[in-house]
Amino acid sequence: MSNAVPVLHVPDVLPQPYLLFLGDVVEPAYAKTALGLRDWAGERCVGEFACEGAAVRTGLPRLTPAQARALGARSLVIGVANPGGRIPEAWLSPLLEALHAGLDLVGGMHARLSGIEPLRNAAIAQGRRLIDVREPPSDLPVATGRKRTGRRLLTVGTDCALGKKYTALALARGLRERGYEADFRASGQTGILIAGQGIPMDAVVADFAAGAAERLSPDADPAHWDVIEGQGSLSHPAYAGVSLALLHGSQPDVVVVCHAHGRERVLGYPDYPLPSVEETIDLVLRLGARTNPAIRCAGVSLNTSGLDAAAAQRALDAAAARLGLPVADPMRGGRAFAQLLDACLG
Amino acid sequence: MSNAVPVLHVPDVLPQPYLLFLGDVVEPAYAKTALGLRDWAGERCVGEFACEGAAVRTGLPRLTPAQARALGARSLVIGVANPGGRIPEAWLSPLLEALHAGLDLVGGMHARLSGIEPLRNAAIAQGRRLIDVREPPSDLPVATGRKRTGRRLLTVGTDCALGKKYTALALARGLRERGYEADFRASGQTGILIAGQGIPMDAVVADFAAGAAERLSPDADPAHWDVIEGQGSLSHPAYAGVSLALLHGSQPDVVVVCHAHGRERVLGYPDYPLPSVEETIDLVLRLGARTNPAIRCAGVSLNTSGLDAAAAQRALDAAAARLGLPVADPMRGGRAFAQLLDACLG
Repeated sequence: MSNAVPVLHVPDVLPQPYLLFLGDVVEPAYAKTALGLRDWAGERCVGEFACEGAAVRTGLPRLTPAQARALGARSLVIGVANPGGRIPEAWLSPLLEALHAGLDLVGGMHARLSGIEPLRNAAIAQGRRLIDVREPPSDLPVATGRKRTGRRLLTVGTDCALGKKYTALALARGLRERGYEADFRASGQTGILIAGQGIPMDAVVADFAAGAAERLSPDADPAHWDVIEGQGSLSHPAYAGVSLALLHGSQPDVVVVCHAHGRERVLGYPDYPLPSVEETIDLVLRLGARTNPAIRCAGVSLNTSGLDAAAAQRALDAAAARLGLPVADPMRGGRAFAQLLDACLG
Repeated sequence: MSNAVPVLHVPDVLPQPYLLFLGDVVEPAYAKTALGLRDWAGERCVGEFACEGAAVRTGLPRLTPAQARALGARSLVIGVANPGGRIPEAWLSPLLEALHAGLDLVGGMHARLSGIEPLRNAAIAQGRRLIDVREPPSDLPVATGRKRTGRRLLTVGTDCALGKKYTALALARGLRERGYEADFRASGQTGILIAGQGIPMDAVVADFAAGAAERLSPDADPAHWDVIEGQGSLSHPAYAGVSLALLHGSQPDVVVVCHAHGRERVLGYPDYPLPSVEETIDLVLRLGARTNPAIRCAGVSLNTSGLDAAAAQRALDAAAARLGLPVADPMRGGRAFAQLLDACLG
């Protein structure tokens, strides 16, 4: 029975375009996934859909699942995350409506869509798929360490949740705008929804984690760039192993170190001081050289979202002067970001 | 159906004593598990059992499952590993005989015992368990990074398969012989069979790997030693992430670096030179200090199994002089091993 609903695995591509589901959220922070999809995959989102009483809007047209289907949508993506990762009772009726309208369901919450009986039954009856982007491929290999063709950039961080995904997305977009072939390679659930494919590194069995990273950025044309979304931090007391496996398997030619201005402690681990950017660069180059001796750090992505424009510019300038490297906030773009891109190209 | 046969999870304890199953092997290298159990858990093994034509002996009494049961055995342990990790047709009849005699089956091969229909049916009918030591606990937490009480020693390596398990077993035994309370903490399948419990680190989902290591060596009396079996190597192109998660989660006060005399390349990765012992010590102390700033290296365990006694002594002496640390081969014991134990105690 448990295999009756097809499960999508990478390297399959998610069914697009999307209809974004906002559930019943009233707090924008919980709608991060939908807002990220609007920002980075807006051309593949036909609109939004929500329960009665939802208060967050993406700015995309509000559509019923049937209207979205008529406009070409192929799946409804759950664009919200509530604490605990559960799927509330109130979502059931709109999710069933989407299945009946001919949309697959795509989710990345802790609770699996296929674990909810009415959704399973409806999906089977309608011939629709329940797709969980937290589900890694079942046939991942052990890493070989073999050097692959093509160019690779990995975003690494001093901590979790400070802009590694957005930095990778902005760098991939910047490279494409300059005429380079570049793919964003997603290693986490929101990134996978944006890219339409990827591998959820945190859900991979430890022995295959570096192998998963190898598969995530396969051999490519010598001039092609894979821009790989980093995970965690080499100094994180819980996730450093994931970060190291991703670093070894990615074999990056270039790393960009991501940091949040003013963050001094590991998020959720108040006893752990954040490593400095300098220390992080040193560690990532030392460890990364194991699978790519040519690894280099192009510069730093500094999250200045807590500062006004003038203070942000001062923070970027000060960090660049201290480190002797380009330092940019990709969300602010500008000359600093262009210099960071220059440095990535080498 | 798939939950009808109880699966044992750590921190449960395996049913002991064991009857060791040697299958139909004729090559001692494939019987490593059985020979390891004889050496390190001999007092919990009542005898051996094999197919017709098996040519490897452990030296323990050869018993039928019924005889073993009468002598107190509670499970039959598959003590052999054939290439591919499959369970051959020829093993089915002896395994069924064990179930019928009242023994649980314990395996650590790639193929799961519970995936074999006749074994499943017999286990259900007889009320017996099919236990797979490659199955990690299903409720592992994310690591907290919180410092735990008690003393911890972790064996780390320049590579896989060079003596991290045996070194940990020998050090734990050595500590007990000196009157210390010490537990061997198993992180791999053979170690788990020997200890009767443990967590197979390589099978844990990456995000929970450091959390698994934290659970493996829980809070203990201040004078108690946990001697933790290491995995992989921080320089291994496929498994470094597992090694780092185990290092961070174990929070060792003391590490012993394991190396095989003469090994110059990573096993199975001829393009990767082995890191030096010096480099390995430096890296493990730098990374390990993140969760235990007091971490120190007590010395080196040098696998000299390829050398005669005189050449081994010269190799140990030369390494000790070069490194300025105790260097011993735990399989040879002697004064060097006593000095290594002294250094662990600090």
